[in-house]
Amino acid sequence: MPSEFRLTRTVEFCETDMAGIMHFSNFFRWMEACEAGFYRSLNLPLISFVPGSVVGWPRVSASCTYKAPLRFNDTAEVRLLIKEVRTRAVIFVFQFRLLDAAGGVLPAVLAEGEIAAVCVTAGAGGKMVAQPIPAEVRARLEVAPASAYAG
Amino acid sequence: MPSEFRLTRTVEFCETDMAGIMHFSNFFRWMEACEAGFYRSLNLPLISFVPGSVVGWPRVSASCTYKAPLRFNDTAEVRLLIKEVRTRAVIFVFQFRLLDAAGGVLPAVLAEGEIAAVCVTAGAGGKMVAQPIPAEVRARLEVAPASAYAG
Amino acid sequence: MPSEFRLTRTVEFCETDMAGIMHFSNFFRWMEACEAGFYRSLNLPLISFVPGSVVGWPRVSASCTYKAPLRFNDTAEVRLLIKEVRTRAVIFVFQFRLLDAAGGVLPAVLAEGEIAAVCVTAGAGGKMVAQPIPAEVRARLEVAPASAYAG
Amino acid sequence: MPSEFRLTRTVEFCETDMAGIMHFSNFFRWMEACEAGFYRSLNLPLISFVPGSVVGWPRVSASCTYKAPLRFNDTAEVRLLIKEVRTRAVIFVFQFRLLDAAGGVLPAVLAEGEIAAVCVTAGAGGKMVAQPIPAEVRARLEVAPASAYAG
Repeated sequence: MPSEFRLTRTVEFCETDMAGIMHFSNFFRWMEACEAGFYRSLNLPLISFVPGSVVGWPRVSASCTYKAPLRFNDTAEVRLLIKEVRTRAVIFVFQFRLLDAAGGVLPAVLAEGEIAAVCVTAGAGGKMVAQPIPAEVRARLEVAPASAYAG
Repeated sequence: MPSEFRLTRTVEFCETDMAGIMHFSNFFRWMEACEAGFYRSLNLPLISFVPGSVVGWPRVSASCTYKAPLRFNDTAEVRLLIKEVRTRAVIFVFQFRLLDAAGGVLPAVLAEGEIAAVCVTAGAGGKMVAQPIPAEVRARLEVAPASAYAG
Repeated sequence: MPSEFRLTRTVEFCETDMAGIMHFSNFFRWMEACEAGFYRSLNLPLISFVPGSVVGWPRVSASCTYKAPLRFNDTAEVRLLIKEVRTRAVIFVFQFRLLDAAGGVLPAVLAEGEIAAVCVTAGAGGKMVAQPIPAEVRARLEVAPASAYAG
Repeated sequence: MPSEFRLTRTVEFCETDMAGIMHFSNFFRWMEACEAGFYRSLNLPLISFVPGSVVGWPRVSASCTYKAPLRFNDTAEVRLLIKEVRTRAVIFVFQFRLLDAAGGVLPAVLAEGEIAAVCVTAGAGGKMVAQPIPAEVRARLEVAPASAYAG
């Protein structure tokens, strides 16, 4: 039962803005890419249109605090931690840390984000309705211990 | 029967890159925004999931030549010209021109693009298949005369 | 002394995702577009590389809560409210409301966001350092009264 | 002297649109990511603000033809081929091919693009001016033979 996942990624040119740093909105895209990698690692779908199964995880809230910027060609680790598993929602925390030239993860957290996603399925007429997280998904999600946040 | 359409738009901060100019990929997004405005102006859908009707216009090719950059807060006109209407496809040309402080369109073309879009519908199993452009859509599309390209 | 600003904008095709709604990260780009329009309305720069003047407003935090989605071709109002003006930072709140077909703003808030931006200038070596908001900028910023949030 | 480079990448959720496929503009971002990886592999900068050195490679043209879509979680290879090296410009061709579940590259080309980039440096007043490709860069670029395009 995993409680965390790590994604390593390099800042692309198109992710920068004229201030010379990664645009703040792209941190949210990196969080989602990490979440998608987490679900792939569990062989669970992030989104599925198969009738009767989980169809998606729309976001009810997203936030990020920024301590230091990321720049073009910087390589960083995004670390997903499961903060809370509710009946119909999961709350993830994401930590961004820079890698050094040797590929080691530096201890400083450059940015920290949080996404709350609610489990939905297609109700009558195709409208999305919140549903309890299916048992087989819930069985794969474990809340990270407080000690995990240190690195 | 329109043969052209004009969209005026201002460069956003997130559309710039660390070179201080609008990222080249965003010109394609502006072209599509202009195309969407064109279809809205005709009260025709760019995309529709209503069974039996036109479902979409996926691109078979897209290109752009760049003469001069656009910068943050620049306002430019994107001008759509219908270059060709085929049985199953439409080819659009897009010209980008800067506006001056008084809102006048400057003559120089900063960038010129072209998109070829094929008309598709949902076939058996939901797979997209090319279809002849429906008569009511075709009736609204007129090829722009050569003289129109001058401005 | 303005305490708010409104931007009206239509969802573009490229802003949607395969779930059929505007991607959650794009709400942050709309917030920034509204902030940029606000600064333009005051004839103040959002970003400037002129030596000695304000050079930028990097974000220290950004958040959004989502109540209902936006879809392709939806037109919405983003309303900026100044929540707080600190010595070196401004905190904005952004409310998203849908427009009806007649252009009227519907009362329901679809999404509400917040951005805290810190005023920086270029210090020695070109590194960004936080600075007190210049007096001429501060003079233009007024905190919105609590009553303003109702619409 | 390399004449090609390969990047493997997985389609992210935010890269899809409401038609359920990767948005056509993102193929251009993948091409640039491949180009950036190519320059990193040569230990050459794609962009540099060091006075006197190469400062960038703005695009003079970009194009793509689309044969088949990419979908969320699809993994594809982008293959860069150097088509032409001119005095002041390089022309790259990019081929997109899907990977199968075992990581093998399938032979069909899903999309093929081309980017012409001009070498610029900062002239008087900071304005970008085209310059001959520096000898140390040119020495690293070899035109791919016609046979290379087959895969």
